[in-house]
Formats: sequence, C-alpha cells, structure tokens
Amino acid sequence: MSQQDHTLDPSLASWVASANDASTDFPIQNLPYGRIRRKGSGEPWRIGVAIGDQVLDLRLALDAMPWSDTLRPAARELASGDLNAFMARPMADRVAMRAALSHALRAGSGHQRALAGCMVLQSDIEHDVPCRIGDYTDFYTGIHHATTVGKLFRPDSPLMPNYKWVPIGYHGRASSIGVSGQQFRRPKGQTKAADAAEPSFGPSKRLDYELELAVFVGRPNELGEPVDMARAEDHVFGLALFNDWSARDIQAWEYQPLGPFLAKNFASTVSPWIVTMEALAPFRRPFERPAGDPQPLPYLDSPANRSTGAIDVTLEVLLHTQAMRDAGLPPHRLSQSSFLDAYWTVAQLIAHHTVNGCNLQAGDLLGTGTLSGPTAAGAGSLLELTQGGKVPITLPNGQTRTFLEDGDTIILRGWCERAGARRIGFGECAGTVLAPR
Amino acid sequence: MSQQDHTLDPSLASWVASANDASTDFPIQNLPYGRIRRKGSGEPWRIGVAIGDQVLDLRLALDAMPWSDTLRPAARELASGDLNAFMARPMADRVAMRAALSHALRAGSGHQRALAGCMVLQSDIEHDVPCRIGDYTDFYTGIHHATTVGKLFRPDSPLMPNYKWVPIGYHGRASSIGVSGQQFRRPKGQTKAADAAEPSFGPSKRLDYELELAVFVGRPNELGEPVDMARAEDHVFGLALFNDWSARDIQAWEYQPLGPFLAKNFASTVSPWIVTMEALAPFRRPFERPAGDPQPLPYLDSPANRSTGAIDVTLEVLLHTQAMRDAGLPPHRLSQSSFLDAYWTVAQLIAHHTVNGCNLQAGDLLGTGTLSGPTAAGAGSLLELTQGGKVPITLPNGQTRTFLEDGDTIILRGWCERAGARRIGFGECAGTVLAPR
Repeated sequence: MSQQDHTLDPSLASWVASANDASTDFPIQNLPYGRIRRKGSGEPWRIGVAIGDQVLDLRLALDAMPWSDTLRPAARELASGDLNAFMARPMADRVAMRAALSHALRAGSGHQRALAGCMVLQSDIEHDVPCRIGDYTDFYTGIHHATTVGKLFRPDSPLMPNYKWVPIGYHGRASSIGVSGQQFRRPKGQTKAADAAEPSFGPSKRLDYELELAVFVGRPNELGEPVDMARAEDHVFGLALFNDWSARDIQAWEYQPLGPFLAKNFASTVSPWIVTMEALAPFRRPFERPAGDPQPLPYLDSPANRSTGAIDVTLEVLLHTQAMRDAGLPPHRLSQSSFLDAYWTVAQLIAHHTVNGCNLQAGDLLGTGTLSGPTAAGAGSLLELTQGGKVPITLPNGQTRTFLEDGDTIILRGWCERAGARRIGFGECAGTVLAPR
Repeated sequence: MSQQDHTLDPSLASWVASANDASTDFPIQNLPYGRIRRKGSGEPWRIGVAIGDQVLDLRLALDAMPWSDTLRPAARELASGDLNAFMARPMADRVAMRAALSHALRAGSGHQRALAGCMVLQSDIEHDVPCRIGDYTDFYTGIHHATTVGKLFRPDSPLMPNYKWVPIGYHGRASSIGVSGQQFRRPKGQTKAADAAEPSFGPSKRLDYELELAVFVGRPNELGEPVDMARAEDHVFGLALFNDWSARDIQAWEYQPLGPFLAKNFASTVSPWIVTMEALAPFRRPFERPAGDPQPLPYLDSPANRSTGAIDVTLEVLLHTQAMRDAGLPPHRLSQSSFLDAYWTVAQLIAHHTVNGCNLQAGDLLGTGTLSGPTAAGAGSLLELTQGGKVPITLPNGQTRTFLEDGDTIILRGWCERAGARRIGFGECAGTVLAPR
C-alpha cells in the first residue's frame, strides 16, 4: 500500500500547525483514533482523531463535513463513540475513512473552515478506553524478557521447550483495563515467603510494570473459522501502548498450575490512541528467525510475514516518583527497547489464536507480552532491571527502587522513525500506584 | 430467607400443570431465567422463566401483567432481553420479582387468564447464552479432580502446595461460550509426543469435557473495592451447568508457564437456565474443611460460610455417541458427583477474586472447575475416567472411549433434592463434537 497511499507522503502538511512540528507524535500521516470528550463536560463519548496538539471531534465533524454516502454510516459510528462498529468494518472502509480525514486535514483543504469548529485541544479532553474490550489475551513474545525471567527460576534452561514453537499466550481480565491516567490501589493478596510454613495476607511488596504493545482486533472471525497467515492482518485494526501491571509476589504463590490471576487482574493500562496498521505501513521490516532457531510451523509462516512481518516501534519506560514530582524533576527513563525484538509477529498472534477456531471480536485486545531488548538497558520490567529485586536501581535524585512504591507513576512511550518517512508516535500510557486501602 | 420465603413452600402448586409433576426440573419453586425466542422466528431475544414444560415469555408478559411501579423497570429489562441489567440490581429487586412471578404462576392466581397467552412450550423455543458474558474466570475447586489429574503428572505430590490455601483460578475466553446445543469442530493445534523431537500440527486426539457449574455474577463491584465474605453472595445471581471442553494434548504442550489457552478457548457450553440463589436456599449445607487441612485465611472465612456455605447439587454426565443415536439407544451415564465436594464455596470465589480490587460485572461467569467426586464413579472428565487415556471405558453398546470422538454428544445434568423441599433442576447442558475442518 505504501507506494500508492498518499496519506503516508512525508511531505504532506496539515492546516493544524502543530501537526507539522517535527517532534509531534501526531502528524497528518498518523491519524490515530481515541474515545474522547471535553474534560468535565459529561457529554457522550465520541471518537476523535489526534492531529498535532489537537483532536478532531468526529461528533462535531459529522454535520460539519460533507461525507460521501459511502462514508456516512462509518462517520455516524465514530460520532456516536462506537469505535467497535467501525473496527469491525472491512479494511477498504477504514482505508477510505483515513483518506477522507487526510484530505480534510491537509493544508489547503477546502474543509478547513468547516472543521475549525470541530477541533479541541488535547489538553482540554478526557479519555475513556478507546473501545469496548470484549476479551483480552496476553502473549509472551518478548524472548529476552522470557529468558531473563526464566533464568531467575531455572538458570540452566530459562526458556521452556515450547517457547520457540508456540506463541505462548493466556487470557487476561478485560474489566480492569483502564486508559492512560489510571490510578489504582496497591493490590492485597496471599503471598508466601520461601522459608515460611504458611502464606500470609497483605499488600503486595513486589509490584511491577510490564512494557507491552496492545494489538486491537478489527474485523472479527466466526467461531470455528481459523484465520490463516495470508489474511491475518486484515483482522488487525491497530496498536497502542499497554502496561500489564504485575504483583510478582502474588504471582509466585498463585500461578501454579494454571497461570497468573490476581497478580495481574487488578489493573492494566492502555494508551488512549490506537495507531492504525495503515499508519504503520512505512515501518514494516523483514522478520527472520535467529540462525539455529526452528522455522515456524506452516500455519505460522507466510512470505509476507518473512518480508514485512515485523514493525519497527521504539519503546521506552519512564518513572516519575512522588518525590521527583514534588521537586519539579522530570520523569526518569528506565529503559528503551524495540518491537523488532519480539519473537512472534502480529500476524502470527492472530493465526495462532484462531487456529483452533477461537473467535476474535472487534475491540479485543492482544497484549504482546513484555517487550525487553537483548541487554539490561532494554529491560521492560523492574523484575529484570533489578535481577528479581536483588539489585536496586538508583534514580537521579538518589532514590532507589527494587519494585514500585506508592505514588510512583510509570509512563510508556513509543514511536516509529525511519529515513524517508514522517515520524509517528503513540502518545503516552501513564499509570500511578496508590497506597493500599 | 427460607423460613419466610413463601416462594419456596414445597406445597405451592402452579396453574401450569406440568410444573406440578414431581420429576420436573422447573416447579414453581425454581423459576430460572433464560434468554429465549420462538424457534426460527427471528424475533428479538427476550428473557423467559421456565415453568414445567413451558416458558413464561416476559416480553409478552410486560403488557399482560399489571406490574407495580416498583417492578415495571425491571420487567422492562427482562422484556428487552437484557438480563445483565436485571442481574445488576440489588438483591431486593430480584427477590421482589421472584415473589411477583411466583404469585402470578401459582394455582388460583388471578393472572392465569392474562398470562395464558404468554406461555410457550419449551420444545418450541430456541436459546441464546442467558446473558452477555463480559469476563469468564475458571476456578479449580474440585479437589478430587485436581488430585487425580495431579497424580498423572506428579504421583508423589499430586496437589500443588498452594491448593489448600488459594482458590486457584485463571481467566478464560468469553467469546466462544455457547448455549446448550452448541456444536463445534474438533480443534486443531500443536501437540508434541513425549518421544518426538519436534511438535506436529493436526486435530486434537485427546478431546475431553469437564463437568462444572457456572456461577453468574449479579451486582457488580467497583474496581479497587474488594467484596468481603459477609457480602459476597449479594453479588451472585445464580448457577447453571457448564462444560469446559478441553484438548488435553494441546494443553500439555502449550500450558507452561502461563496456563491453558488454545486447549480451552475453542468452545465452552453453558446451560440455558440460570437457577437463582433464592431458589437454591433450601439446599444450603455446612461447609467444613477435612480434619488436618488448614483453615481458610480470614478473608476467605465467615460464620455464614461455615454454617451454610455449601450447596447440595447432584451432577451427572451422559454420553450419547452417533452410533447410540443411530441405534435409538439412550445416552449413557458416565459419572455422578456433587457440588458438596468442592473445596471452596461460591462466596469464597467472589471474595478471593475481588480481594485485590478486581471488578466483577453483572453477567460475568465463574466456572467452578471440574466437580469430580472422591471415587472413580464421580470423575468429571474422561482424563480421570480413563486414567489419562490409558484405560478405555466400554459403553453399553460395546463402543469404547479414551477421549471424545466426532459425533459424540456430552450432556450435563444437575438437580437439588432434600426432604421437606421441592426438588429443583438445572435442565441440560448438551454439546456435540463435529469432525475437524
């Protein structure tokens, strides 16, 4: 698509001046969707599109713009705040909407005057999760994360024998997913010290974050109808940032034999903007297995996946403690990594998830799992950064951390850059730990 | 409640004659809710209440009955097919609706003539899942199941050290839950033979059922607000039968370290009628830990849980193979067990699930886990009945089974009986395995 898709032309500029700033996450080449309303207005939620430091409010734009008969039904869904209905549409509809928005927002557009009244400053809006999330699945595609964590428990064989064959995944809790800005109380639960005879109950002492991307499902598949690799990305709407908060001490005691449960389901945080697969097209990269690793089974393989299955997204984690905020200090970067280091692609996650006939629905969220890089500087969790809580990290203001403390805010950021393309970003995914009840 | 609740009086009779038959699952003391419409009508779904061999259609009853101002909003929700809205109501509203339905349906009711036109034969209706299931959690409360299955893998320590402390649970897939009558294709996936160097791909060869009860959440709790034991059952709407189909060979290869995934999420089947907690009141029983077992931690304990936490539900599994159907033979009973053998109560599942602040929503489904009895005759899965597939069972027509074959139908049944109370039943939960694609 990228050759003929004028919405990706790096020379395109917008009549929204801030969108032309080289440092913005939201140039006209991005056009991500979120669910918004004016702060404190109590208005119905509607879908907005981020552009520069502003948002195009599609509820207002429904009447302000002369939509074609083809696009009007989709525009109505967006105006009503129902992103799921739009996500479920065939890719052609999504591409047409993107083209219409790109035309309307570009410099010299005849729609500028009509749309000027439909713009809201991002600082004046509040967000809900971008869509209704029916089911949430978390994968485990970060091989460096899996290896580092595995080493803590099994130094000789950190990776399970299935890791390089099966895109390991499990179901998570959809109800407790919140949008960036989420604040949650430190969870309580059962934990058991290695030398204790019995478990005890209390607030988690090993609270952690996990740096992930969220893959949002678009077009659904019917129960019993697997989606093959060739069509897998037709079912993907876009990506966002995702923090899979984890209570390591609760997890260690509860997770055998059926997996994590209360260690994860107290809160998960997603960023407000879904960056579409169309916007990510310039950042596709070849996907190759390291030498010596098994090739994917045929149901997880395709020529397109090998040539362009990977996506070059740079990711980083920042910590902002209460003391740092009180002293007026900026957040401190804990790590930087890349989605290129994932062991499985987005298409492989879809093909694997549905190969048994499982039905995915519009708005379902697939977490990638913790996206750590190959070195300690790319560790996507404190569990990795502190070697299981044994080696504290020291922050610029002299504070130390093994795990998160009350008042800590974790901020995830992500962006795509390459020569010949306009940089696009994901915005922020922030969440804050509150004291336990 | 049982002393003063006239809806439970065993001498109550209904003007629906079949409801007075001693063998019916649906006497006037039961009054379970389901989502129904006339078969093939394409009408909107509405909520119905099973009574004898008939159903009271609450869409029709909305105008036929003189609802009080207090009950009319709830009646409207039921008429519109939105069981979730009704489930979310305070217990007092549910109790009032039950009293109104009981009065309207009892022999001598002044409403008989008005309601006669609102009755549909059960054989003339079709079902959807009874409510919108937001999140589905599966627990593991069947200690005999956990022990028998554990022995297959770890003969010396079948139960994990956490089992008697933690109500083990994990998240499952909501989108693939279907209602009784569900037919699904045998799932395909990766499996690996113990002596194979690499996994292979194909249809599951070890397809199994799991006999469970579904606990449906009623009143929701807010994120961050745990529900304590004293209030836990205020958040439970009722119970149904549940079959957690499982592909054992896929599970064995995929489940480490994060739990079951594709082995379970291709299909799960729930019975159409939710039997309310009010109807189950006569069948409450003391809940005691076996001598020598640890007492539950305080957050999982309460006087009421000790005195009446258990529920006496008899459960059975029947198999109907294609050959049996072709020969006109009836289904064959594979096992019988009781919910009394569960290691954790419904209240404990709610208190545990929310203790970290996790929010439950109306319509959420909590599976109990496989409810096996202490002997082989009570085994709630083929994995247990056939000792991991090593000892085939022989059916009355000479067929044998280690695991399920294409065309096999599994039927779950459940009922409650005791002296001095009217027997109530759960109806059937049937599902059929189709050949793979």
